[in-house]
Amino acid sequence: MTVETSIAQLHPDRVLVRGYNLVQMAGRRSFGDTVYLLVMGELPQGKEGDLLEAIMVISAVHGIDSPSTHTARAVANCGVPLQTAVAAGISAIGENHGGAGEACARLLQEELDAYPDLPLDALAQQIVAQARAEKRRLPGFGHRFHDPDPRSDRLLLLASQWGLSGRHSALAEAIVATLRKVTGRSLPLNVDGAIGALISDLGMNWRYGKALFILGRTAGLIAHVQEELDTGKPFRFASKLDVEYLGVAERPLPQK
Amino acid sequence: MTVETSIAQLHPDRVLVRGYNLVQMAGRRSFGDTVYLLVMGELPQGKEGDLLEAIMVISAVHGIDSPSTHTARAVANCGVPLQTAVAAGISAIGENHGGAGEACARLLQEELDAYPDLPLDALAQQIVAQARAEKRRLPGFGHRFHDPDPRSDRLLLLASQWGLSGRHSALAEAIVATLRKVTGRSLPLNVDGAIGALISDLGMNWRYGKALFILGRTAGLIAHVQEELDTGKPFRFASKLDVEYLGVAERPLPQK
Amino acid sequence: MTVETSIAQLHPDRVLVRGYNLVQMAGRRSFGDTVYLLVMGELPQGKEGDLLEAIMVISAVHGIDSPSTHTARAVANCGVPLQTAVAAGISAIGENHGGAGEACARLLQEELDAYPDLPLDALAQQIVAQARAEKRRLPGFGHRFHDPDPRSDRLLLLASQWGLSGRHSALAEAIVATLRKVTGRSLPLNVDGAIGALISDLGMNWRYGKALFILGRTAGLIAHVQEELDTGKPFRFASKLDVEYLGVAERPLPQK
Amino acid sequence: MTVETSIAQLHPDRVLVRGYNLVQMAGRRSFGDTVYLLVMGELPQGKEGDLLEAIMVISAVHGIDSPSTHTARAVANCGVPLQTAVAAGISAIGENHGGAGEACARLLQEELDAYPDLPLDALAQQIVAQARAEKRRLPGFGHRFHDPDPRSDRLLLLASQWGLSGRHSALAEAIVATLRKVTGRSLPLNVDGAIGALISDLGMNWRYGKALFILGRTAGLIAHVQEELDTGKPFRFASKLDVEYLGVAERPLPQK
Repeated sequence: MTVETSIAQLHPDRVLVRGYNLVQMAGRRSFGDTVYLLVMGELPQGKEGDLLEAIMVISAVHGIDSPSTHTARAVANCGVPLQTAVAAGISAIGENHGGAGEACARLLQEELDAYPDLPLDALAQQIVAQARAEKRRLPGFGHRFHDPDPRSDRLLLLASQWGLSGRHSALAEAIVATLRKVTGRSLPLNVDGAIGALISDLGMNWRYGKALFILGRTAGLIAHVQEELDTGKPFRFASKLDVEYLGVAERPLPQK
Repeated sequence: MTVETSIAQLHPDRVLVRGYNLVQMAGRRSFGDTVYLLVMGELPQGKEGDLLEAIMVISAVHGIDSPSTHTARAVANCGVPLQTAVAAGISAIGENHGGAGEACARLLQEELDAYPDLPLDALAQQIVAQARAEKRRLPGFGHRFHDPDPRSDRLLLLASQWGLSGRHSALAEAIVATLRKVTGRSLPLNVDGAIGALISDLGMNWRYGKALFILGRTAGLIAHVQEELDTGKPFRFASKLDVEYLGVAERPLPQK
Repeated sequence: MTVETSIAQLHPDRVLVRGYNLVQMAGRRSFGDTVYLLVMGELPQGKEGDLLEAIMVISAVHGIDSPSTHTARAVANCGVPLQTAVAAGISAIGENHGGAGEACARLLQEELDAYPDLPLDALAQQIVAQARAEKRRLPGFGHRFHDPDPRSDRLLLLASQWGLSGRHSALAEAIVATLRKVTGRSLPLNVDGAIGALISDLGMNWRYGKALFILGRTAGLIAHVQEELDTGKPFRFASKLDVEYLGVAERPLPQK
Repeated sequence: MTVETSIAQLHPDRVLVRGYNLVQMAGRRSFGDTVYLLVMGELPQGKEGDLLEAIMVISAVHGIDSPSTHTARAVANCGVPLQTAVAAGISAIGENHGGAGEACARLLQEELDAYPDLPLDALAQQIVAQARAEKRRLPGFGHRFHDPDPRSDRLLLLASQWGLSGRHSALAEAIVATLRKVTGRSLPLNVDGAIGALISDLGMNWRYGKALFILGRTAGLIAHVQEELDTGKPFRFASKLDVEYLGVAERPLPQK
């Protein structure tokens, strides 16, 4: 039995990726171009690879108190190899942290597919109304620390300057405006949401909304894990917790 | 109690990395420059960031039968989120796969530190003789499929063209020549070894020998996991195994 | 700020779990009783702990070609610590492998909650009809290798003998009978489904349907990882793949 | 090509483990007996399975501020499936946490192999003297919270009552006595060290010193992850950190 793939092909003297020689690409094409090729199957025609690099740069690192970073450092602190700690940090990029890019991309793509002819303002109002009726948060909007999220503004600006903006990011901005009008609160497009919107404008499947964030963040995880291996005293993370026990009081073990 | 870090600092309107505004870096600096900054604490003065990009490009993907890729796809095949499968693939980048870059960098750095005045040929002979006496493989030399490894040759060439080659990669090449002379066999510098040598020439701690490979490979893992989620039928990896049972024959369970 | 928990409380001379002294429990209470206490908050009144032990025994190991086992061995083969390989194996216990216990428990619990007064045969027919109308597989029914699954039969028998069977396992058996009648095919209750039904009869949240399987399987993963560390030659898993490349043919890299 | 194993063999109507029918074992043999069989290849002749159960019971849970538990909960808090969070917790059981059992078992086994005829007191003095000369901590001795560690005392007592104590645990106790005499400090045998000594007395390879702890702890991780999924508000772990930035001050991004 065989396993099929359309991504890479090995030869003793070269590695082909989507038909191109990866060895020749090194030094001639950026890592962003390579990621674009891996995902889309073709090399970019314009600045798409640069936009992916910008996404990765801006995702690379946030605070040590970002959940993925905190997890990677806490695991590194236990005395494990680098890759084990980095893997634990990546495994934490779930629905509540970093994962909103995927959900936001999906939302934007599905809504624009379902209502291709609706003006974006009307579509945004419909999306917000439905989420409020179902008491559902819209993924990619709002941030616990940044308002506005300067990372989103920067990425949207670059995409616009490079001619890579499209209807998905426009819809995201219409949703922000509608949310402000309807709720009276500011729920800015956060970095996950901006990534979700922009990779949708690039034509990528919504699943890559989380993947690009993971890829950029891996750089920061590596640096943080190394810093922890160099400087962290064992047990320093877990022991910082103040614990409150809410369970049943001590009781004798019954005879069996 | 507090956790200390020298990497990043958060403000509502910006994220500082080693003192620079990460938001401004997006679009102005490459991902390779950002990785260099994270690792070394300073922006590159020359083409160092480009060399890191070339390392990441060349590490991005190999065959589907590369252990990290195979693991990530096999886990994705079980019905888990993207980050869980990618994390499993990264966790497999250990001593036997991808990990030689760390060990090779350490070897080259420690030997050059210990014998700064020895000519490289003499040092290479001493290293090879000692490894043979201890029946130890030298990490970073030899590859099961590539001979020479075209990825190593390409990276060494780029480093040389960009003025970034140094004594570590020269020592690695002297070891290859010595191995050929002494053993009569060709044990080329493999891609792990080349990365280990070049990051040493850049002045990085040997621990980053594995980290750069991990970072590049994450791109390929993401594409492979997506392909598996799109096309793979459940159970297709595990069920490809032919199993030979070598244990004791069936026997009755004794009464207790 | 504090983190709350109702599970355990530490004292220098004892560890309390749900109010009982864990140190005294060792040697007096089984691991199955301890798991029951952790999950339910109380010690079992009857043979509930023995049933959990039986579930863990029967989940402990399956073929080396079971996905979680295959993953753990493939990762161990790359030269990583035991816990890294075991963790990778556990991370593969997803929707397509081991995860059906959770989905099956949820289905049984939700249907019995929604239709408490319907006879089980009628409820089974309604469930099967709806799944067929939606072209949805029922989780926990059917196995690629076992028919019937001897593990399910054994667990259901033990629960019945120990007075621990209830309406969830009865509904599961009614679904098997209905599936046979309606589809003409045998779709036996598999081990995941049996665990899901039985932990539901014990009053556990459906989420534990996957957890008990994970716990038992960890024993087998440990033994398999140790065997791999003792006997496995590097690269033996990935290199067993036959690969078929379906992508675009080789093409020249365009000038940028 | 084939993969060899001596552990399990599949038949449609039964699963054989080391030659015994796993299906029949459920309900007749404990999980501890099953673990012993998996590890040693034979069913226990005496209370060995009960001792393994006691080890697993006593390892099952500690504080929420134990590193593996803290990690699993922090990852669960990010919105991932149960198995992903449990896997992250297990991956943290490294050299600084839970891993000392492996190192301690290795030490005891290698010293007793190397000096089979030396009285245990003399051997303990030699081991302590050498560790002090090399400024090396002895793995398995000392605990940040418990002194003595009540878990170790309980396990040693059970092993003694059940006739399963041997020279490894006696050597461990001699080392404790020597440490007290030589250093004037109390460095009690901790739970990792007790497990390492007792599995050595059972004849197990030192590698299982960490494995038994992992297996028991998985039970606690599952309960803690479920509690987190039920009650934990997103971001509550990472955001508890107080961060002190020690890096370079803000500086302008140079033109490229």
